[in-house]
Amino acid sequence: MELAIGVVGLGAIGRDHVKRFHERITGCKVVAVSEVNQEVGRRVAEQYGAKFYADGEELINSPEVQAVVVTTWDPAHAQYVLASIKAGKYVFCEKPLATEAAECEKILAAEQAFGRKIVQVGFMRRYDPGYTELKKTIEEGKIGQPLIVHACHRNMTHAATMTSEMSIKNSGVHEIDVLRWLLDDEYVSGQVVLPRQSRISAKEGLQDPQIMMLRTKQGICIDVEISQSSGYGYDIQCEVVGDLGTAKLPDPPGVITKTDCSRVTGIMPGWETRFVEAYNIEMQDWVDRVKNAQPLVGASAWDGYVACVTSNILGQCREEGGTSKEIVLPEKPEFYN
Amino acid sequence: MELAIGVVGLGAIGRDHVKRFHERITGCKVVAVSEVNQEVGRRVAEQYGAKFYADGEELINSPEVQAVVVTTWDPAHAQYVLASIKAGKYVFCEKPLATEAAECEKILAAEQAFGRKIVQVGFMRRYDPGYTELKKTIEEGKIGQPLIVHACHRNMTHAATMTSEMSIKNSGVHEIDVLRWLLDDEYVSGQVVLPRQSRISAKEGLQDPQIMMLRTKQGICIDVEISQSSGYGYDIQCEVVGDLGTAKLPDPPGVITKTDCSRVTGIMPGWETRFVEAYNIEMQDWVDRVKNAQPLVGASAWDGYVACVTSNILGQCREEGGTSKEIVLPEKPEFYN
Amino acid sequence: MELAIGVVGLGAIGRDHVKRFHERITGCKVVAVSEVNQEVGRRVAEQYGAKFYADGEELINSPEVQAVVVTTWDPAHAQYVLASIKAGKYVFCEKPLATEAAECEKILAAEQAFGRKIVQVGFMRRYDPGYTELKKTIEEGKIGQPLIVHACHRNMTHAATMTSEMSIKNSGVHEIDVLRWLLDDEYVSGQVVLPRQSRISAKEGLQDPQIMMLRTKQGICIDVEISQSSGYGYDIQCEVVGDLGTAKLPDPPGVITKTDCSRVTGIMPGWETRFVEAYNIEMQDWVDRVKNAQPLVGASAWDGYVACVTSNILGQCREEGGTSKEIVLPEKPEFYN
Amino acid sequence: MELAIGVVGLGAIGRDHVKRFHERITGCKVVAVSEVNQEVGRRVAEQYGAKFYADGEELINSPEVQAVVVTTWDPAHAQYVLASIKAGKYVFCEKPLATEAAECEKILAAEQAFGRKIVQVGFMRRYDPGYTELKKTIEEGKIGQPLIVHACHRNMTHAATMTSEMSIKNSGVHEIDVLRWLLDDEYVSGQVVLPRQSRISAKEGLQDPQIMMLRTKQGICIDVEISQSSGYGYDIQCEVVGDLGTAKLPDPPGVITKTDCSRVTGIMPGWETRFVEAYNIEMQDWVDRVKNAQPLVGASAWDGYVACVTSNILGQCREEGGTSKEIVLPEKPEFYN
Repeated sequence: MELAIGVVGLGAIGRDHVKRFHERITGCKVVAVSEVNQEVGRRVAEQYGAKFYADGEELINSPEVQAVVVTTWDPAHAQYVLASIKAGKYVFCEKPLATEAAECEKILAAEQAFGRKIVQVGFMRRYDPGYTELKKTIEEGKIGQPLIVHACHRNMTHAATMTSEMSIKNSGVHEIDVLRWLLDDEYVSGQVVLPRQSRISAKEGLQDPQIMMLRTKQGICIDVEISQSSGYGYDIQCEVVGDLGTAKLPDPPGVITKTDCSRVTGIMPGWETRFVEAYNIEMQDWVDRVKNAQPLVGASAWDGYVACVTSNILGQCREEGGTSKEIVLPEKPEFYN
Repeated sequence: MELAIGVVGLGAIGRDHVKRFHERITGCKVVAVSEVNQEVGRRVAEQYGAKFYADGEELINSPEVQAVVVTTWDPAHAQYVLASIKAGKYVFCEKPLATEAAECEKILAAEQAFGRKIVQVGFMRRYDPGYTELKKTIEEGKIGQPLIVHACHRNMTHAATMTSEMSIKNSGVHEIDVLRWLLDDEYVSGQVVLPRQSRISAKEGLQDPQIMMLRTKQGICIDVEISQSSGYGYDIQCEVVGDLGTAKLPDPPGVITKTDCSRVTGIMPGWETRFVEAYNIEMQDWVDRVKNAQPLVGASAWDGYVACVTSNILGQCREEGGTSKEIVLPEKPEFYN
Repeated sequence: MELAIGVVGLGAIGRDHVKRFHERITGCKVVAVSEVNQEVGRRVAEQYGAKFYADGEELINSPEVQAVVVTTWDPAHAQYVLASIKAGKYVFCEKPLATEAAECEKILAAEQAFGRKIVQVGFMRRYDPGYTELKKTIEEGKIGQPLIVHACHRNMTHAATMTSEMSIKNSGVHEIDVLRWLLDDEYVSGQVVLPRQSRISAKEGLQDPQIMMLRTKQGICIDVEISQSSGYGYDIQCEVVGDLGTAKLPDPPGVITKTDCSRVTGIMPGWETRFVEAYNIEMQDWVDRVKNAQPLVGASAWDGYVACVTSNILGQCREEGGTSKEIVLPEKPEFYN
Repeated sequence: MELAIGVVGLGAIGRDHVKRFHERITGCKVVAVSEVNQEVGRRVAEQYGAKFYADGEELINSPEVQAVVVTTWDPAHAQYVLASIKAGKYVFCEKPLATEAAECEKILAAEQAFGRKIVQVGFMRRYDPGYTELKKTIEEGKIGQPLIVHACHRNMTHAATMTSEMSIKNSGVHEIDVLRWLLDDEYVSGQVVLPRQSRISAKEGLQDPQIMMLRTKQGICIDVEISQSSGYGYDIQCEVVGDLGTAKLPDPPGVITKTDCSRVTGIMPGWETRFVEAYNIEMQDWVDRVKNAQPLVGASAWDGYVACVTSNILGQCREEGGTSKEIVLPEKPEFYN
């Protein structure tokens, strides 16, 4: 009766999800795990009573696995998503769907050939109560027609491996996905503006911060500040300006203290706490829908493809010194409407 | 492996909890339900695949039930808690533990005779992330020694059955419990102040609002405004004043809109949304602890007793026109430390 | 053409007002000053081109003085106000009007005998834009009928001379005046509640904080926390609860910074900055009205009397251990309507 | 002893300033006014006891006028500023200094030839307490080195005469001036991005909103949303992002009401109330400095020139479809340091 899940990839987010399925999500069970680091893989398997597979594809094809979660490193995402489609199993793939547009296209083709939408991409912000309320506010017409979006994605610090490209592909991609979902619109062009370099982000060659500029079909202009080293906390801001008013994403709640001539509310250091509720809602929704064979409502493979293409083009904009580029995509297949 | 729960009483909160156990809480299953309205009871039983018992005590004694949740009307709470203790089963009783102090005392005696703490009372605010952060802020010494608490409990509207007494026993009792938990202190006296009557609360004989005043052993002075008809929403406020600063419970987050010369954030109409997270955390914690035979950390039978005695004394204060009264309790048994 | 002002008393607030008249208030000139400390007095006189008088009454009676400002120490207020009335000159007296009710009564009698209202008491909060907007909000009916007021008056630290009595007579008296003005209502009873002592307020015999409780004719219940040692800043709070909603005094604006995982707004350390705008508006209004012989709209001698009587009764409540007392005043003379 | 001021131009802002000098600013007197609409001019002259001049230059050269305030329509500003310099009199010119760069250059040359800085341009935001605190916060290093500025200038509605060009030259110019002052930096390039058109701003040919993008010598990237028809109020926002944190301009304070499931603070409809304090401080400072022959600290003729050139270049960017342009200025003369 419980959905039998197999998890491929046990890095930080993979282990997080295994724990989440075990402790927070009802109606499911992690029955199988796979991980290139076999020691880690076997330990996690034992801890949660799951079977360990050295080979991810073997796990996917194993009959006791009903649905697959892909949380490997990014370059391996496409391979396991394709294997899951081939096996005819629902697959939840952490973002990005793939690192290259060509791989996304293979996934789109495979899923359409399979004939039913079974791929979901892990853009959890679509489930965040703040973004959900913001979308509802816009859809109810409270602020009129959206004209402009001002957004910020500020990480407190970054890993040593962070690069200028990753800043857009890993952080910016969340904004790319959530804003077109929020506005129910598509991008037509983009640009990257490079401000003065932060001294905190002291990694050779890492341009930080960056500002992504996007324009949609409806003409909505979006500016998104992306920072890998805000210096003060993890801070996600989003304000939508309509022709009747504005609507702003709420900050996470926090105790207000007054001490030392200061009125203070805490700011979270990282995304783990900021979006924990979004992850929980996302995964419960996915499990419920997969179990009941209901249509998925999270980000589809098409959404993953759009995010991939858009972030790649923005990456080129940055490399080419900030010029504006068109964002051109093939027509959206009927299958994905 | 899943905790087999029996729920006695299927009113609004009872059905809510059954749904919660089914959809949100992991590691448990509602296997049996009981309800005086048999039609409702049988329908709920069928919906969730549970067995229906016309008789609550029979449910409690049924071998397939491992733990009991009591959500009947208030006057029947004590009976089923006592039956659960007799059956040696963990029992979660929605607040209040009992309507009379004498009944609470019977429960205390029975639980001590049984020899292990197996009763938990449903004061969910102890699990609310806002109150939890507030308690942590105090305990870390950020605001020094607490001196004063200003609190408000405002309901938007009340049921036709609401009375002046219930205003304290049903609404005020949450404050009575959560504030002594927050301050880690005990009440020594109380008083009820009766302000001008609200015209919105148009029920004959219902004094609304009321102000409960409490003093603790450490001398902390507490004022709690209780309103059954705020006219604008469900609003819970709590500010603790220490000798180095103050700390305030956060408001629930909400989208900020700017329209019509107004900057607006929504206020929730009722408690269901305001404390849904607290209920979820509370119930998951209870299930986890019961399953693993870990000590319970929620409100104990003793806490339920203190809340009952305190709200009864405050009820007398109000009836006697607002005079101050001592709040005297027997010494806390070692068992409850 | 400029109003010729004489200032009696050049302590901190006196010098502040002289500076204010010189730099910020149009249509007036300080022509004469008096001060018991002659050295200070002569220096201020010279600085501002005013004449120095060793004797305050001589200043008042001097023909070049058209209007008088009394800013001596509290016990001398009544004497100079009476002298001004006798001289038939407008007099602005810093709060309190007098330290004893009997003195206030003499002033009321003298002013009525003179036949025109020429006394104004320096309760500047009536001119604060925040309080003004709050009063307007209530009067427009936005929150329905007021039922309850929660207020706080928190000083950061106190002078070595501060006493439990002064805490009410000097700080609390501002609240006593502004709240009956805000509510357009009169007090009928009061009480003082004494919470746990602050360790910061380490003066022998100073009870700090204190809570003043007041009830009005309309039954509005007021609680005002008075603290002489908040430990964190100067903080004035006021929330009015009506039967349709609530309205809250705004905090002073301040830059919002985000650093070190904290969202911070500054809190002012003292009243000087917090109410500087109120003082400026108050004084300009007084000068304008006096020059044009328009009726004064600030706090009258009667208001000063009510504040004096009320704070005296609350002082007795505190001394007698917190019992509630009636606040009885003679009927308000027609003259003061 | 009072500074004798002559005001040339009595439109809305001109009459406002005359009233301000009369009622709020100490140490000055409006002795002469001039206005092309002679009926209005004579009425204002009579009301304030000033002499009326049909000819502005005659007023400027009249011996009883010590200092000049220019508040005519924009195209006449330069003429009267030049006349004032020729007459060797201090002149306060409402923004803009001139509509064409060439006129500004004539003023710069004339003032340098005169040999002392006697021109001030009316960029009042430099005196706003919020901007002042923001500048101080940056200068104290609290947020590290500034990297990015996000700003908004939203008018509620616009006059029928508003054009796309005026949106930058009249509204945007305030941002252009205040941001380089705030950052103590100079612009090197600019761009205008044109979002979807607001339906509220229904004027043929008026592009609204617009986004000005500016880059400074230090590499700080600035985005400023300019809206002539926000639909909800007059709203000025400014957030400076540094490499250690961020600092945000405070909103004007306002009573917070809770009614109808909404927590509400009012937003001002227009600039008159929003910046009234800035205007008062600005004018008092100017009068004080002129009277005492102290160096002026407000916006200089050079600042007016920079604002003029920058807004002209941004206007060209918009006309040419949003391309980025360099902002090139002659070297700043030593005289203006």
